[in-house]
Amino acid sequence: MSVKLLLKGDHRALAKAISVFENEEPEAAKIAKEIFPYTGKAFTIGVTGPPGSGKSTLIDKMIKHYRSKKKSVGVLAIDPSSIFTGGALLGDRLRMTSHNLDPKVFIRSMASRGEAGGLAKATRNTIRLLDASGKDIIIVETVGAGQSEVDIVKVADATIVVTVPQLGDQVQTFKAGQMEIADIFVVNMADLVGADKTVTHLLGGIVSKYGWTPPVLRTVAKSGEGVDNLIQAIEKRKEFLAKKGIAGKKKVDKIKAEIASLIAEKISKASLKELSSSKDFEKIIEQVNKKKIDPQTASEQLFTRLWKKR
Amino acid sequence: MSVKLLLKGDHRALAKAISVFENEEPEAAKIAKEIFPYTGKAFTIGVTGPPGSGKSTLIDKMIKHYRSKKKSVGVLAIDPSSIFTGGALLGDRLRMTSHNLDPKVFIRSMASRGEAGGLAKATRNTIRLLDASGKDIIIVETVGAGQSEVDIVKVADATIVVTVPQLGDQVQTFKAGQMEIADIFVVNMADLVGADKTVTHLLGGIVSKYGWTPPVLRTVAKSGEGVDNLIQAIEKRKEFLAKKGIAGKKKVDKIKAEIASLIAEKISKASLKELSSSKDFEKIIEQVNKKKIDPQTASEQLFTRLWKKR
Repeated sequence: MSVKLLLKGDHRALAKAISVFENEEPEAAKIAKEIFPYTGKAFTIGVTGPPGSGKSTLIDKMIKHYRSKKKSVGVLAIDPSSIFTGGALLGDRLRMTSHNLDPKVFIRSMASRGEAGGLAKATRNTIRLLDASGKDIIIVETVGAGQSEVDIVKVADATIVVTVPQLGDQVQTFKAGQMEIADIFVVNMADLVGADKTVTHLLGGIVSKYGWTPPVLRTVAKSGEGVDNLIQAIEKRKEFLAKKGIAGKKKVDKIKAEIASLIAEKISKASLKELSSSKDFEKIIEQVNKKKIDPQTASEQLFTRLWKKR
Repeated sequence: MSVKLLLKGDHRALAKAISVFENEEPEAAKIAKEIFPYTGKAFTIGVTGPPGSGKSTLIDKMIKHYRSKKKSVGVLAIDPSSIFTGGALLGDRLRMTSHNLDPKVFIRSMASRGEAGGLAKATRNTIRLLDASGKDIIIVETVGAGQSEVDIVKVADATIVVTVPQLGDQVQTFKAGQMEIADIFVVNMADLVGADKTVTHLLGGIVSKYGWTPPVLRTVAKSGEGVDNLIQAIEKRKEFLAKKGIAGKKKVDKIKAEIASLIAEKISKASLKELSSSKDFEKIIEQVNKKKIDPQTASEQLFTRLWKKR
């Protein structure tokens, strides 16, 4: 594939490059190196929420807005449902829209392979490719479940958590620490009964971080109602990050986290390789199998031999 | 908490012990050591499938069967939807059933925290506690999405993948490699239109492993239709594992995988600790921030210093 064409914004080159990373082809490292200096200009928006909360419709409206402002948009839809793809893939739903014909809009979906940390890595690389290709706005869409919601925070400048009004007596529960991932809350389908209750509930659990208090917005994505407010909130978030110097700090933190995870991955691989060819490993597994030693103690012993006595 | 009571099958002691592990209290290591010799007797069944496929109802019927055979049952429901708990938690749905009053049935739900590998570790420990407490059958229920489906294979002796008939023209897609996790396929709600098509589709993609060909069964969990066949298939699977000596080999493989992941975790932590206090790390992050070097190259350099030159 041609890095030159990618840097010019060519969608075919971009699609090919993403595939190279997805399939972990040897060329990936070279491309990563070449494009890296051209990254860092895009603003990344994470959109997460349960299935059926209208994320795709909302993103469709966001794309329309940004296109009206002549901004180019890249969308990365991460689909965590890997065994069962009941219904359309997240990205497919978007691709069915008119944006598909727009040369300034690129939409890609990606299936989570269920590998630990794998999604964050693939997401980071794809965002970088979109960024280098000149996209001004990058939207990462994911279903709010497990690993993917944690990963989205790692890559997004603004994380939008979409929810819908709760019906009847059903109370929406947010677990401890998980209100924290949202920079902006959106109660979509806000024309439905129960919207007020949901907004109140969310407001009660808001957690400020570094001086930013996540707003709780109402939208009706289908009609476009409230989307302007959402765009404004994203702009405010952008200004906040820039003014407080948080953008720069966040950038450094992201780099740290990425390098740390890349190193951890390499060290894990290297140590397991060393382990698998060691007689100690076989012996200790036999002992665990015979219930003479428990796995935790066994791993501590091996760890000591592998690492501490370097 | 009392390990003695736990070993006698006391549910309060069991519940307390699980919490000790969930909250990673210091006592956990001690308990793990003490109970380990009493583990290895239970048969573990994994049940995975999309939301709304009737997993809970199916498990309810399975519990009824095993209880009629005087077997004790432990159920561990893993809920990956962490931000949004739309509807009841997996385990709650089961707990609403009559089994709640049965002293030989223990049901626990557990939320995935989205940590890489964390779920597998917590699941393994909880299964061990259930096992040591004398449960004959342990059922692990999870929504088939991302990490949790990969983890279930690591811990289950028999993995059941539940699906439902596809309506209309919608074709169910199974991604490469992902047919492989099922030891038994169940098409639930098999009285619905589309069941034949779904069965045919599944049969077309069946992958035999080590001489085991996953059967494709039809059930109507609500009425109990087909559940007998499912129980028979599980029995066959159990006999197959025993006869071929695969059970023993699988056990060793599981021990290997567990110890390897425990060691990898320890080494990652140790190396990142060493890293965070090194000047090299700060310097290289600054270089990445200035785009003089890309993250992959940076991590390779640091890895070399940390590991290879031991």
